[in-house]
Amino acid sequence: MKSTSAHPAVLADAVLPDGRRADVHIDGGRIGAILEAGTGAGTPADGGERIDLGGALLLPAFVDGHAHLDKTFLGAPWRPHVPGGTIRERVEAELEIRRGLDVPVAERARALVHRMAAQGTGHIRTHADVDPQSGLDNLHALVELREQVRDLVSMEIVAFPQSGVTTAPGVDRLLDEALREGADLVGGLDPLGFDGDAGGQLDTVFGLAERHGAGVDVHLHDPGEAGAGQLRDIAARTRALGLQGRVAVSHAYCLGDLDAASLDRTAAALAGAGVSVLTNGPAGPMPPVLRLREAGVRVFAGSDNIRDAWWPYGTGDMLERATIIGLRQGLMTDEELHVAAALSTTEAAAALGLEDYGVRVGARADLVAVEASGVPEAVAGHPGRRLVLHSGRVVAEAGRLVPAR
Amino acid sequence: MKSTSAHPAVLADAVLPDGRRADVHIDGGRIGAILEAGTGAGTPADGGERIDLGGALLLPAFVDGHAHLDKTFLGAPWRPHVPGGTIRERVEAELEIRRGLDVPVAERARALVHRMAAQGTGHIRTHADVDPQSGLDNLHALVELREQVRDLVSMEIVAFPQSGVTTAPGVDRLLDEALREGADLVGGLDPLGFDGDAGGQLDTVFGLAERHGAGVDVHLHDPGEAGAGQLRDIAARTRALGLQGRVAVSHAYCLGDLDAASLDRTAAALAGAGVSVLTNGPAGPMPPVLRLREAGVRVFAGSDNIRDAWWPYGTGDMLERATIIGLRQGLMTDEELHVAAALSTTEAAAALGLEDYGVRVGARADLVAVEASGVPEAVAGHPGRRLVLHSGRVVAEAGRLVPAR
Repeated sequence: MKSTSAHPAVLADAVLPDGRRADVHIDGGRIGAILEAGTGAGTPADGGERIDLGGALLLPAFVDGHAHLDKTFLGAPWRPHVPGGTIRERVEAELEIRRGLDVPVAERARALVHRMAAQGTGHIRTHADVDPQSGLDNLHALVELREQVRDLVSMEIVAFPQSGVTTAPGVDRLLDEALREGADLVGGLDPLGFDGDAGGQLDTVFGLAERHGAGVDVHLHDPGEAGAGQLRDIAARTRALGLQGRVAVSHAYCLGDLDAASLDRTAAALAGAGVSVLTNGPAGPMPPVLRLREAGVRVFAGSDNIRDAWWPYGTGDMLERATIIGLRQGLMTDEELHVAAALSTTEAAAALGLEDYGVRVGARADLVAVEASGVPEAVAGHPGRRLVLHSGRVVAEAGRLVPAR
Repeated sequence: MKSTSAHPAVLADAVLPDGRRADVHIDGGRIGAILEAGTGAGTPADGGERIDLGGALLLPAFVDGHAHLDKTFLGAPWRPHVPGGTIRERVEAELEIRRGLDVPVAERARALVHRMAAQGTGHIRTHADVDPQSGLDNLHALVELREQVRDLVSMEIVAFPQSGVTTAPGVDRLLDEALREGADLVGGLDPLGFDGDAGGQLDTVFGLAERHGAGVDVHLHDPGEAGAGQLRDIAARTRALGLQGRVAVSHAYCLGDLDAASLDRTAAALAGAGVSVLTNGPAGPMPPVLRLREAGVRVFAGSDNIRDAWWPYGTGDMLERATIIGLRQGLMTDEELHVAAALSTTEAAAALGLEDYGVRVGARADLVAVEASGVPEAVAGHPGRRLVLHSGRVVAEAGRLVPAR
């Protein structure tokens, strides 16, 4: 394939997310103009280069709203999955496995970032395990990596207490340190199911958020009413601290197994508090996407685990993630397929508080061209990526990273 | 990319499904020898060309055990999905939609076959709608297409009564004609749920199978005990007619919602009669793959609908299909991931009665090289296809068809 310009001035004949065909002009790493295709405006005035997309779909770069960059085995030889045990036993097993890996966390995480960027992801919210055994090692590695890959992706980091908070000695202090040393958000883990002390864990987590002005992203796998009660507790705490729009709950499986009245009540609480919900489209019960959106709850998408001690699956492709969620939720019409795409793009960007996002004049030119005629086709079949741009620079072509020039 | 030889004599340094590294010699469209890699045997003696796979995984070509080539909209412009209605209403709606398509069935079906072959599928069982409105038009189109694409894939065709049998006037005679005019198997559709007459539909279907010496593949979506009763009826009819190994039930959702005793009883009946079960890994209840295998029931995989009136999803990638089924069934260990792969390869080949199948000396060189270190990694992430061979000829490289040379 002929190599394209590293900094194209025009992406010509693109199909925009709303279906229009346009020439997208890029200037200083941002979208300078969006002009109707075929009007002759596709020729850069300043001698800059033009890439003809030939009717390919141009989307804003994907947002991976939930990754565990520090956990992945990518970059290391294949490791068979070791099954079994309770969640707590699996956490212990994971620590043991990761201690035995020859490839350092930074190298594995970088391999995953590269794979994500090649497929069009431009923004990542990653969790970093913070626990008594590994301390802040994972956080430090990811903070350093964030600088090294800033030409490919933007990254925010959640200090994630994978070994619990109230039941793990010193984790409260470690989370506090993490927020001073580069973490953007504080995480939590099944306050009731893991720590057995919902109030205690959430006191710590929200206390840290308030003290540091940080966002919150809590892993919540607890089912049924036990989960719903914690969701409403999280919503109440979010309102009390004025953290609307800065708090997310990841997974929230319970939203998939509540009765209608409890779902209504819980969704209203989340919507009223501006608490968003992250899903990866799991095999079991999951948040009902359309129902939550109708209730005003923001739902967004993320990869979750990718080839790590928790499971061997995962590609890091956020368009395939939209497909997976669409299949799980029975999203079929064009309007519904647009919703599925939004979970990996605009909704995730809003949940992360990304500014300058989108295919619009003034936004940063973080873009991905997909071999599809429009958004519905892209979600239905997650076809190949022709081109990925970050801040106006071509970072990947035909699904492969191109070296910086 | 440098074009490879159309008929390589050696695929060197391949990882075989069992993990060995080997040079695979091809002679006259078949595998002539499999020799340990790096022994110098990788140099063809007769001057033929050598392709170095550099440790890529070499699998037998994928088998798509359930396609509807005649239904797809591929090859035509994107069509938004039209939701709603009962199954019977959807069947009527589909007939209307397909009558309105500008692109003929042969052209759409060919577009899908090309996509499948590019991703490594070498064998397809497709259903062809046979109904009072379209008669044998779909069958005739697919019989003709089968000849046209025989250098890419082998194909068997099921005469599929999408509009029912006992409730659709003349379909029994059409199925009979279909079996004389190129169909290899006779199909059925929810004998109880659609026709309301399980005995009547199965009398016709198995009567035709007996008369023509044809195989049987029945679509069965009916849930719970209603479905299980029909499965046992199908098993009994299969034994009575000596059709062991030649009968499949597609979908069999009911196997996913039976109590343990009924599942045991039904699985034993299927196993005893050599009736296999096809799944595409749907979002709802599905056959429990490992449990059925333990009971001796053959389970295999297929794409089912790909971008048609039934739903907009689908890629035709049978390795991704293994991933989807693996995710739905929680297949995690290497052994389990091998099972997932087998559903799209050896198990499907056995269900279709394919001879000469596999990566073994004497088998036909229908092969696919995958960018993975082994079978578990291939299922976990369904990575790209480096090379696809059909009868020893390179038909696709890097996921794209190459023209015949």
